[in-house]
Amino acid sequence: MPLNYIPSLLKSADSKIVLLLLDGLGGLPIETGGPTELEAAETPNMDRLAAEGALGQSIPIRPGITPGSGPGHLALFGYDPLTYIVGRGVLSALGVGIKVNPGDVAARGNFCSLDKDGKITDRRAGRIPTNEALPLVEKLKTIQVPGVETEVKHVKEYRFTVVMRGKGLSDQIADTDPQKTGVSSLPVKATAPTAERTAAFFQQWVNEANNILAVQPKANGVTLRGFATNPALPQYQDIFDLKAACVAVYPMYRGVALLVGMEVIEFPGEKPEDEFKAVEKIWKDYDFFFIHIKKIDSKGEDGDFDGKVKVIESVDKTLPMLLKLKPDVLIITSDHSTPSRMKSHSWHPVPFLLWAPERCLPDAQESFGERACALGGLGTFLATHTLPLALAHADRLSKYGA
Amino acid sequence: MPLNYIPSLLKSADSKIVLLLLDGLGGLPIETGGPTELEAAETPNMDRLAAEGALGQSIPIRPGITPGSGPGHLALFGYDPLTYIVGRGVLSALGVGIKVNPGDVAARGNFCSLDKDGKITDRRAGRIPTNEALPLVEKLKTIQVPGVETEVKHVKEYRFTVVMRGKGLSDQIADTDPQKTGVSSLPVKATAPTAERTAAFFQQWVNEANNILAVQPKANGVTLRGFATNPALPQYQDIFDLKAACVAVYPMYRGVALLVGMEVIEFPGEKPEDEFKAVEKIWKDYDFFFIHIKKIDSKGEDGDFDGKVKVIESVDKTLPMLLKLKPDVLIITSDHSTPSRMKSHSWHPVPFLLWAPERCLPDAQESFGERACALGGLGTFLATHTLPLALAHADRLSKYGA
Repeated sequence: MPLNYIPSLLKSADSKIVLLLLDGLGGLPIETGGPTELEAAETPNMDRLAAEGALGQSIPIRPGITPGSGPGHLALFGYDPLTYIVGRGVLSALGVGIKVNPGDVAARGNFCSLDKDGKITDRRAGRIPTNEALPLVEKLKTIQVPGVETEVKHVKEYRFTVVMRGKGLSDQIADTDPQKTGVSSLPVKATAPTAERTAAFFQQWVNEANNILAVQPKANGVTLRGFATNPALPQYQDIFDLKAACVAVYPMYRGVALLVGMEVIEFPGEKPEDEFKAVEKIWKDYDFFFIHIKKIDSKGEDGDFDGKVKVIESVDKTLPMLLKLKPDVLIITSDHSTPSRMKSHSWHPVPFLLWAPERCLPDAQESFGERACALGGLGTFLATHTLPLALAHADRLSKYGA
Repeated sequence: MPLNYIPSLLKSADSKIVLLLLDGLGGLPIETGGPTELEAAETPNMDRLAAEGALGQSIPIRPGITPGSGPGHLALFGYDPLTYIVGRGVLSALGVGIKVNPGDVAARGNFCSLDKDGKITDRRAGRIPTNEALPLVEKLKTIQVPGVETEVKHVKEYRFTVVMRGKGLSDQIADTDPQKTGVSSLPVKATAPTAERTAAFFQQWVNEANNILAVQPKANGVTLRGFATNPALPQYQDIFDLKAACVAVYPMYRGVALLVGMEVIEFPGEKPEDEFKAVEKIWKDYDFFFIHIKKIDSKGEDGDFDGKVKVIESVDKTLPMLLKLKPDVLIITSDHSTPSRMKSHSWHPVPFLLWAPERCLPDAQESFGERACALGGLGTFLATHTLPLALAHADRLSKYGA
C-alpha cells in the first residue's frame, strides 16, 4: 500500500479538498531572463491564493525524470510510479476510453506493411492517417475469438488498442513487434506458462486480422505490444477515506482516476467553467474533487507560449466559480511541466500552490510562478506527498504516535 | 544497480556533460554574519552561470553525515554510498595509485612497535615520519609469497598499503590490529571458510615482514586492517550510456573514477588550466568529463580561509577555457564541504550549480554561494540525483511511461 503510515491516522471530517490539475502548467522562459508562461500570465486570483497560501515545487517521479501522463497522475494521487506500474496497454486503452478491469488484458496495436513473404516492410504502414485507419479498425471489430470478448478502438493514425476479457487471462506475453523491418512479426508468445492460453487467443485474433487486412495496399498486417492488465491498485477510499470524484474531459485522465477508485463524473461541455459547474453540482456528494484541465498542456505541446499564457489566464478568470464553493483545501498544480519551448513534457520541478485558509502556514511569496515556487514554504518534495499535505490541511489526519 | 529506473530511459545524443568538482568547495563564515569562502570570493564567471542557470544544495550521504572522499565521490557519481561500499583497503590502495581489480585483496598497513615478547607497545611505531618509513617499505616490497603476487606502497608516515593478486582470493578477513597496546597483534583470521587460503597468504606475508623489521628500533612490526576487494560496481557505460573521462591530478580520485568505469586521462601539469587543456584535447572523444580540482579542499583542511578564497577565484578566472568548449551541461559542485574554520570535511549541504543553456529552468538567484544555493530552484537533494539531472538537461533521457 502506498503511504502506508496514512490509513491508521485518518479521522473523519466534513472538509472538502480540491485538486485542480492544470496539465503541463510548468514552463521555461523563451529568452534569457524572461518569464515562464505562468509568470507571464496575468493571474490575480491565483496570485491572491499564493499570497494567502503556501507555495512549493513537486518532483513527479525523481529528479531529472520526465513523466508520461500515467505515472505523472499516479504520483500526484499518492502512488510512487516506480513501485506502482500501469502497463502501456492499459494506459493506451484508458486513453481511448476502454475500461480495463483486473484480469482483462490490453495491448497496443500498430498497422504495418507486409511483403508477399509476410516480412514487415514498414512498422507503421506508411503512417496511414486517421481517416484511412478508421474503416480498417471497424473491420477488426468484427473479429470473434471463441472463449473471450474482444474490444478494439482506434487511437491515432496507424495505432489502435485491443482489450480481451475472459476467465484466467494473463498479461505475461511478449511484444509481437520485432522493432525492425525485413523480418516477420513475432508469434504471440507467453513469457509464463499461465499465459499460454491467453497467447493462443491473441494469436487467433492476429491471424484473423492479417487475413482481413490482406487485400489492403499498405496496412495489410498488425503487430501488438505492451500487453498489460489493470494492476488492481489500492483504492482511494481505503487509503485516504476519501469519496473522490474525477471531473475531466479526456478519457486518459478519467481512466487513471478510475484505476485508483475515483468516481468519474459525466457533464456537458469541455471548458473549465463547464468542469467547475460540474463540481458545483456534486459538491455535497464528495470529499475530494480531482479536476483536470488539459488545454494548458496542449498549448505547451504545440510550442505556443502566448497560447499557453492565455489559457492559464482564462482558468484564472474562471477560478472564482470554484472559490465560491469554499473548499477547505485547494491545491493548484500539475502532473508535470510542459514548457512550450520544448514542445514536450519535461522533468522540471512542478509549481505547487496550496491554499487552506484555516490551517496554512503562509510563506513570503506573493504570486504564483516557478521562481516564487522555488522559494516557497513547502519546499521541493516528491509529488506522492501531495495527498498527505491535502489531508492534513483538511483536518483529516490525527497525530502519529503519543 | 543504482538508479535502476535510468537505463531503460536512456536515449543517445551528441551532448557533452561536464562535472566540475571543486573538492571541499562548501564552507562556513569565520565570523557571525560574515561570508563563507565561496561567498567572499570574487567569481564573476560562476556568478553569471548562476544567474543563467539553477542552484541547489546536494546532500552527499544523508543529512548530518560527513563523507570521506570515497563515498563522497561515489554519491556524486550516482552510487548511494550506504548501498555501494568500497572497502578501506581499496580506497587506501587507490589513494596511492595501486590498481585493485575485482578479486584482488587490499589492506591498510601500520608499522607498529613490539616489545621482546611480541606485545604491541605503540600501534603507530612512534608515528615515524615518512622519510624513516620509506626505506622500510622498500624492504617489505622484497617479500615473496608463493602462489600470489604482492604489491606494497607507502601511504604517509607509519602507514602503507598492501595488495595481493591471485586466483580464488577473498577479503573476508578480520583486522590484525588489536586496537590496543600490551597485547600481541592478532593472527590473520578468515571470517568465512572461503578466505582461509587468503588468510594464510597474508599470515605468511606478516611473518616475513616481522622478521625483516625485527632489527628496527621503533617500527619492528606490522598490523593490517580494512581487507577489501574491488566491489565490481556497475559501470558508467551500462548505467548511463556515457563515455566518461576523468581528468584529475590525485590518485585517489582517479581510482574512484576507475571503479565506476571512467577512463583516466594522462596529462602534463597539475593546475586547473592544465586540466582544462587536457579536457580540450579529448573533447571530441567523450560524452562526460569529470574534472577534479583538489586545491580548494587542501586550503580548507589547512584552515586557510583566505587561501581557499584565492584558489576559488583562480578557478573562476580559468573557467572561460572550459566554457569555450560549449558544454551542453556544466555542473559545478563538490563531494563535500571543507570549511576552513573546521579544518576538515563536513556534513553541510554542498553548493550546486547547474548550467544548461538550452533546457534549464532558471531560478531567482544571481550569484554562486551557500546562501544563494539554499534558495535555489533545484532545492535540496541527495547527491545521487546529480547524474539523472545532468542526463535530463543533456537531452539523454526519454519519458518515463506513457
